[in-house]
Parts: sequence; C-alpha cells; structure tokens
Amino acid sequence: MTGREFFTARTVAEALAGFRPDHRTPVEHVPLADALHRVPAAAVASPAPLPGFVKSTVDGYAVRAADTYGASDGLPSYLDLLGAVSMGAAPDVAVRAGGCVAMPTGGVLPDGADAVVMVEYTAETMPGTIEITRPVAPGSGLVRADEDVTAGAPLVPAGRPLRAPDLGLLAAAGVTTVAVHARPRVVIISTGDEVVPPSTVELLPGQVRDATASALAGLVTDAGGEPVVAGIVSDEPGVLKDKLAEVLPTADLVVVSAGSSVGARDETAGAVAAVGSVWCHGLAIKPGKPTLLADCGGIPLIGLPGNPLSALVVFGQVGIPLLWRLSGCEHPPPAPSTLARLSRDLASATGRLDVVQVQLRDGVAEPVFGPSALLSVLTRADGYLVVPEPATGLDAGTEVEVTLYR
Amino acid sequence: MTGREFFTARTVAEALAGFRPDHRTPVEHVPLADALHRVPAAAVASPAPLPGFVKSTVDGYAVRAADTYGASDGLPSYLDLLGAVSMGAAPDVAVRAGGCVAMPTGGVLPDGADAVVMVEYTAETMPGTIEITRPVAPGSGLVRADEDVTAGAPLVPAGRPLRAPDLGLLAAAGVTTVAVHARPRVVIISTGDEVVPPSTVELLPGQVRDATASALAGLVTDAGGEPVVAGIVSDEPGVLKDKLAEVLPTADLVVVSAGSSVGARDETAGAVAAVGSVWCHGLAIKPGKPTLLADCGGIPLIGLPGNPLSALVVFGQVGIPLLWRLSGCEHPPPAPSTLARLSRDLASATGRLDVVQVQLRDGVAEPVFGPSALLSVLTRADGYLVVPEPATGLDAGTEVEVTLYR
Repeated sequence: MTGREFFTARTVAEALAGFRPDHRTPVEHVPLADALHRVPAAAVASPAPLPGFVKSTVDGYAVRAADTYGASDGLPSYLDLLGAVSMGAAPDVAVRAGGCVAMPTGGVLPDGADAVVMVEYTAETMPGTIEITRPVAPGSGLVRADEDVTAGAPLVPAGRPLRAPDLGLLAAAGVTTVAVHARPRVVIISTGDEVVPPSTVELLPGQVRDATASALAGLVTDAGGEPVVAGIVSDEPGVLKDKLAEVLPTADLVVVSAGSSVGARDETAGAVAAVGSVWCHGLAIKPGKPTLLADCGGIPLIGLPGNPLSALVVFGQVGIPLLWRLSGCEHPPPAPSTLARLSRDLASATGRLDVVQVQLRDGVAEPVFGPSALLSVLTRADGYLVVPEPATGLDAGTEVEVTLYR
Repeated sequence: MTGREFFTARTVAEALAGFRPDHRTPVEHVPLADALHRVPAAAVASPAPLPGFVKSTVDGYAVRAADTYGASDGLPSYLDLLGAVSMGAAPDVAVRAGGCVAMPTGGVLPDGADAVVMVEYTAETMPGTIEITRPVAPGSGLVRADEDVTAGAPLVPAGRPLRAPDLGLLAAAGVTTVAVHARPRVVIISTGDEVVPPSTVELLPGQVRDATASALAGLVTDAGGEPVVAGIVSDEPGVLKDKLAEVLPTADLVVVSAGSSVGARDETAGAVAAVGSVWCHGLAIKPGKPTLLADCGGIPLIGLPGNPLSALVVFGQVGIPLLWRLSGCEHPPPAPSTLARLSRDLASATGRLDVVQVQLRDGVAEPVFGPSALLSVLTRADGYLVVPEPATGLDAGTEVEVTLYR
C-alpha cells in the first residue's frame, strides 16, 4: 500500500531545484500606501536627482570656504551678514567674498557659497557682522544636488519586497505608484469525510474541525500571498476532481490538504492526476512524507499530508519558496533565527530532511516531541531546526540554528 | 541654541524604562481569518478536549494489545476481522478478545480496543482473518482524547501576537472569533515649510517631498499599527498646536516628523508643550538626537528629527516598542538578525546609543556612511548594528549582531 503510494519520491532539495513553474502573477500598479512588502516587477529609476538642490545639512552660515581659512578662537574671521535663506524657497541673495548668509538645515545654498559653517562656531558679535572661529573646507555642511540619488539611478531593485524606507525614497522622488507582481492567489482545498468547518459547534464522534486551512491561510498571508479558502470536499470519488477543475482557472497555486487516511490520499492522488501531471508523490521529509507536487497546466499544485503539523511543515519548506517564485520575489525576506545548543541527540536518516520543533530556554534548544497528529506541538514550539539531508542525526550539545516563529 | 534645545536629554535606555504610558487600545472581537499577528487580550481556553476522541494515528487494525503479545514473522497472531471504522463516524462494532477492526488514520478507536497495529505488520491471509506479525503495547498507534489540548487549557496566551499555527489550533477548538487589542492608531503629522506632498510633480527650489510619512506608515504597519497620515502643517506659529488638538482624540500615538531647521524644531517643541507634558527633549542616540517625547493627556507623542534617516532610526528604537505596549503586546515577534565581523573601527561616545547602517558581504558588516540627510543610506543597507550605550566604540573584526531589514 505504501509502496504504491510513494512511487515517485524525491528529496526536498530535488523539489526546490526541479519543481520550478514558469508561471508568474500579472503586474499591477499599486499606490505607495499599499506597496509595503510588494515585489516590484522592475527596478524603479529616479526621474530626477535627489535632493535636487545643494542642501545645507546644518544650521549656520553659507560662506566661501576660503574666507574661513585660518580662523580660530584667538583669531576669528569676520564676515558681513548679507541676508538669510528661508526654508522651501530659493535664496534671494548671493554670497560674495567677505560675506555670508544665514542658513537653516535643509535650506538651498545661495550662489557664490561653497560651504556652510555650523552656528556653534559662530557669533553675531555686532549686528550685521558674523564672527567665525573654525575654518571649513569647500563642500562642508552640505550635500550635493545628486548625492542621495542621481537621475536615472535605481530607487529600488526588482524582485525584492519593498521595505518601509524604500517607500520613503520612492515618495521623495515623487513616485506614488509602483508596478508590482499581483499577490499570488493560493486556493486552499480541504478534503476528508471527517473534516467539518471550524464554526461547527458540536462535533459528532470522529469529526474534526478544519485546522489546516486557517493555519495555511496565515502562512500564505505572511509570505505575501492571498489565501482563498475554498472549503471542504468529501472523499467521494470525482468530487475533488470537479473542485480542482473549478478553481484552477482562478488560482496561481493550489493547495490540497489531504484527508489523513490512505483512502483519502489515494483519492487525492487520483484526482490530481486527472487534471495535471504529477511531479512527485512522496517527499523525503519528516514530518510530511505523503506530499504530492503536480503541474496543472502551468499552475503548481501541492497535495499536503492530512496531519496539520505535517501539512504546515511541508508548506513552510516547499510551498513558501514556490509562492515567492510565483510573485517574482528573488530576494525573500530573512527569517528570524538564533543559535542554540541542542539538548539531546536527534536521529535522522541520510537523504531525509528532518524538521524538528523546539522550545528555547537559556540558549538551549529542547525538541518538542509528539505525534504529528498533534497541532499543539507547533503552537508550543518557539521555532524549528532542520537536520539536513546528508546528516544521519545531530549530537546533544551541537550548536544549531533555530528558525524562530513570528 | 542647542543648549536650550536639549534641556531634558535622556538616554534611550531611560526612555524605554521610564516613558511607559498606561494607555492600551480597546479590545475588539475579530474573526479568525483577520486575527493573524493580532494580540489576544486574554488567554483563550479550550472549550473541550482535543482531539475529543481516542484517535488512530496509523492505518491498520484496532486490537486488544494482549492479543498481539509474542507475535512475530515466524509465529504470527491470527485475529478475526469484525468490521471496519469509517472516517468521521462512530464505530458500529466493538473489539472483543481474538478480534480486530480495520482502522483508517484519524478514525475513532472502537470500544474494547486499546491499540492499533500498523497495516505494514499485518496481512489478510484468508478473507476475514488478519495475520499480525508484531506485538503492540496498549496505547500504541493512537492519541488520547485530550492529548492535544485538555479542556480549559490555554490554546493561545495573552499578549503574544497570533501566529499561523495558533489560528489552526483555535479553529480545531471551534474558536472562530478572538478578543484582541485594536491596532493602535498612529497619527503621523509632517511639518516644515519646505515639505510638500509626494504627489507634487515639479518642485520649486528648496522644496522636498515628504518621504518620512510614507516610510513611517510602513514601519507602523509592520509593527501591527494602523497608520493615519494626517498631512503636512506649516511652521507658522499655532498651526501645529491646532492640528495636535484636532488629532489627539482619535489617536493612540502621535508622531510629529519635525522640520529639519532649528526654527521648525522650536515651533514643534512649543506646540507639544501647549497640549501635553514634555518627558524628554533630546535623546542620546545617533542619529536622532533632536527627539522629543511627551504625554498628551495619556496619549504618547514622539517628536522625530527632521532628517528622514534619523526619524526612521528613532522610530525603530523608541516608537515601535511604544506601539507594542499600546497594543498589549508583551512578547514582540523576534527580528531577523545575523552575526558578522565588523569591517572597520567604529567610534562612539559613552552613554550614547549609536545605530549604524551596514551592508553585509560574506559575513562582513560594512558600515554605510553618509549624512543623515540621505535617505538612500537606509535603502542601501541590509540592516543595522547597535553600539550600546556603555561602549566607546567597536574595533574592526569584532563580531556584531546585525538586525536585518525585511
């Protein structure tokens, strides 16, 4: 029975390298306020240099630097105060030799000046005369007109989700809409005669509420996708196949959370084979072995194991990288992690990826064991560690990298 | 001038320990589908045990364990097949001594059975007779009715943002709405006569588009808040005070992005003092010294420096912890970070927190320098490191923890 089921088993590494659909979500234009974490479809070039004018970075006086050379507390330079620059306005006065103009931080450098002396090194000793006690070099106290960004230079790259400061730089350049890949629509189908909606108040014996769909929807949202919870279909032959045919035209990725029994898994595999081409059936991962990957006319499909814990682990390892790919994301956001010492020996099999849930206490990673039928194993964990495919296990005391849940 | 401005300067550590408003956002009930990363106002207790019935974790046969003792390939036990359990239904047959019942994974254990033998160790050698080649102990191949969660036990704790698997466990328990703290409404006011909206196509000399508000809105969203971009007010006396009085009744936190000139900063300080009590004016952080914290009738207010880079650094260090506090979040999500070697010496002043933007290459953290007037310093960085308040600097080659942007 199991022999038949795992007829084309693969490793996770093979799946990540080999199951790479060409499909990408379409490009859409979104306002800046909705662009956080969205993936630009192309680099955005700055239409103009930034800040766009020679700008003072200090409060003080615009000068010709040469007029300050040799100035000190003992032997100050004295310059004529010719006027003042207002914020947000063009200067109405130029600086000539022996003169200076009062400058606010962020003001436009007047013609004739090449530096700004900080107010701390000045005093208005007589009305109209400014005493300077420190020399400044040309270029001091200001930024060039294109020092932040030159015209045509990229403000943000393609393929990396936009971060908060990126939005600021785009705003500074006057870019108020961005061409981004649409969020992948991830259609989540639950199967299993025992599975009932979460809103079911009283369960009949043997019934379980659908936990996987809600948790998967959360993972999809976290990874920048748009979850579409498509409900529960029975294990009755043909029902899942019809559902798949119905949702495929609207989906960028289909996730089938299979029933936990062998019968339900066989039904899933049969339905998927009817609408697409199965790429693998069985994945060398623990938990999560009964995973199925298929290509349905260009739309990828993941058949997940029936146990919620296994399903979420597999989706994290295989589904989320797929989701990024579909949304054009070439530089996924980093995941929080920490180094810890393993509290006990962990056995594994060569060629299999083991994902072990752990609790962290004082720098020690303590595995949270329990049957993969238990969802609380996941909610009690602070994160997980991975025993890589080549390893046969990890010894107690090994330093391990724990990916943290957030 | 600067002496007057920093009349009540504090360290960041003092601000985090001492500026702790009691205000919390109200509690609201949200459906599970909208609860990701929301902060439960109280622990949620499970209304019933989970899974709620004794459940098989394997495909196989429900047995009395004693009937399998001593079974081996050479000397199997033979049991009468009494029937089969269907998924999602109560068993219609019990197990008696010498008998067994076919079980799917996830099925309800029939009365009389105390273990399930995996199908791999069985064969139906004659119709109606099952051969067993491995002994099982009582409790083998199943989970207890309350093994995932006991009745009344917490499904999720208070004060920790909900993660995807939490949503699954809540769904499994039939909890479809959660009492959470409302997202803090963070009103963002920009000031400065030079500041114009991002949508401004042609800038006049000296004008800059408002970069800070868009970037702050992104940081607020990331931290679970609801940004309310309230527009730009001029440096004209009285205008900011009126705006503050207008927005305070609707805000959980007010952020004023000050103009960059001393005049604008003085105007901000004066307006804030008129509507609230200034807790500090000047923070020992670089960049970000001209920061102001105030209590406006229980609503905290942050006056940020005029430079976008400084403003975003300060909001990250001081504003985001405040935002978590307002939303009842006692266990903030971990930030991604990595260890790296510092490429060069960094000087700092004792008692001052330095936040240094860095690029990462091959495990080396290279500081991204540039005037804090440049926003591109932030967008070019992969993350930042902190030189802690007691340190006078860091030597090249020091192992540093870099917090990564995402």
